[in-house]
Amino acid sequence: MKTPGEQSPSGPIHGKRARLATQEKIAFQGERGAFSQEAARQMLGEDIEVLPYARFEDVFRSLRQGRATGAVIPIENTLAGSVHENYDHLQNFALPIVAETSVRIVHNLITNKGVHFSAIRRVFSHPVALNQCLNFFSGHRHIERIPFYDTAGSVKMLAEERLMDAAAIASAVAAEIYGAHILRRSIEDDRRNFTRFFLLRRPHWARRAETRAPADPAQWKTSLVFSMRNVPGALFRALAAFALRDLNLTKIESRPLRGKPWEYLFYLDFLGRVDSPQALHALNHLRELADFVRVLGCYPKGA
Amino acid sequence: MKTPGEQSPSGPIHGKRARLATQEKIAFQGERGAFSQEAARQMLGEDIEVLPYARFEDVFRSLRQGRATGAVIPIENTLAGSVHENYDHLQNFALPIVAETSVRIVHNLITNKGVHFSAIRRVFSHPVALNQCLNFFSGHRHIERIPFYDTAGSVKMLAEERLMDAAAIASAVAAEIYGAHILRRSIEDDRRNFTRFFLLRRPHWARRAETRAPADPAQWKTSLVFSMRNVPGALFRALAAFALRDLNLTKIESRPLRGKPWEYLFYLDFLGRVDSPQALHALNHLRELADFVRVLGCYPKGA
Repeated sequence: MKTPGEQSPSGPIHGKRARLATQEKIAFQGERGAFSQEAARQMLGEDIEVLPYARFEDVFRSLRQGRATGAVIPIENTLAGSVHENYDHLQNFALPIVAETSVRIVHNLITNKGVHFSAIRRVFSHPVALNQCLNFFSGHRHIERIPFYDTAGSVKMLAEERLMDAAAIASAVAAEIYGAHILRRSIEDDRRNFTRFFLLRRPHWARRAETRAPADPAQWKTSLVFSMRNVPGALFRALAAFALRDLNLTKIESRPLRGKPWEYLFYLDFLGRVDSPQALHALNHLRELADFVRVLGCYPKGA
Repeated sequence: MKTPGEQSPSGPIHGKRARLATQEKIAFQGERGAFSQEAARQMLGEDIEVLPYARFEDVFRSLRQGRATGAVIPIENTLAGSVHENYDHLQNFALPIVAETSVRIVHNLITNKGVHFSAIRRVFSHPVALNQCLNFFSGHRHIERIPFYDTAGSVKMLAEERLMDAAAIASAVAAEIYGAHILRRSIEDDRRNFTRFFLLRRPHWARRAETRAPADPAQWKTSLVFSMRNVPGALFRALAAFALRDLNLTKIESRPLRGKPWEYLFYLDFLGRVDSPQALHALNHLRELADFVRVLGCYPKGA
């Protein structure tokens, strides 16, 4: 399986080559047309160059090494939960979060142009996407589900092989990129399927970007990770650091540390700027109690 | 794709037909040899009949309708996070958790007997498993990765098609069930890959099972779900209900409720029996604050 970002320089798919000198190069995991690309569009507009990679770790490395100007990563999904791997990379690479957005995961039935619904015998997609469209398949039992390594990649394959008896399940962006046709929109079983994405920058860029951000501190979010030994009431005391300063939490999640049965990692998001007096006091208070505290970023609250 | 538990009665794969009258029939999602089957073995021993289904919802339905005597479901993975879908089913079906266990996800390279490593040109497995063995593939670039709908299913296919140039990545149980050979053990990149599973019963059975359980309340765990409106300090006050009674939390996780931007669902586990005085007081206290509280089960703490 190839990792396009590593093997060939990516050309811009939207926008003009004339602006290349200052153009955004955004790294993400998956094929072109992945939901991460949709998230990048939401945060940065259409005029970006994309650098797709097969592995999340390579996305972080690409940004750290300056091949990309930014990276877009999924961090949690309403059905599938938090992406722990990316929390680990956020800690290890220390590349700050500068923006967030939420993308509704819409699965579309996509074919080459000219294919009629009645001609479809097989549908290719990532098994997670196939499993999120089971009602569709229950209603069309003659159609075979065929697992593929990537949602957008299945559209690419349809187009390259010019298959006229098959469809793919993927995003609308994927259909557009590979010149394919959306035969049926939104065939997913559960519409409450959203993924939250982060935009990451290198540290010096993150500082620069803050100039055009909202003035109201309540329009900011701060994300952090901390670890604690699990004595009764430990988390309660940690959360006191925030409650006593009226800081509102929007996420809390514990993650057991393997090999250390009584230690936990916590993910926490609160509304507010990390450099506000309340947040500074809260973080100092938390540092008294926690084994370590790492701020992952402070960014304008997404829609 | 077939759903074996629905289409054909499953025969016992271990144990003796003579004991069928009282034999355990355990429903789970995936093919025979899935990691859920390993979890069932850890909790119930070898002598069980298995009922594999394609969908989690059908696993719950099978138990509710009495086709299965128990159900085994994954609830969280150390790399991939909580399985929100199963938390939803736990709430909707109200089938109590009666046991938990943790299974280390070991990915093995599995072939038909007689296949030498040098003959392998293709490896089939679920894309998640393929992506968790990238170091192996980096070291053997001539081997193609081919996505398949299920880990255990890929071993079944190898065996049925008698492929002699291919391998699968799956559990040791899958190799055993389909009479295949483990060529290399534990080829996963990250060994901190564990999945926590629950055993569910119908309510009357759950009460019966409690007789052979540990006497020490600290050896019990209670799982619950509650929802709250997100005013500053809301979660802090909710956790006070537990901290004030010295009840030790082993899991806390928030999940935003879609369509209700300021309401959150919380998953919480604490050490202790749900019918202890401290727990009863804590739950009454929590009910004062939360919009709803649902106890999902009380069960002996897993190893």
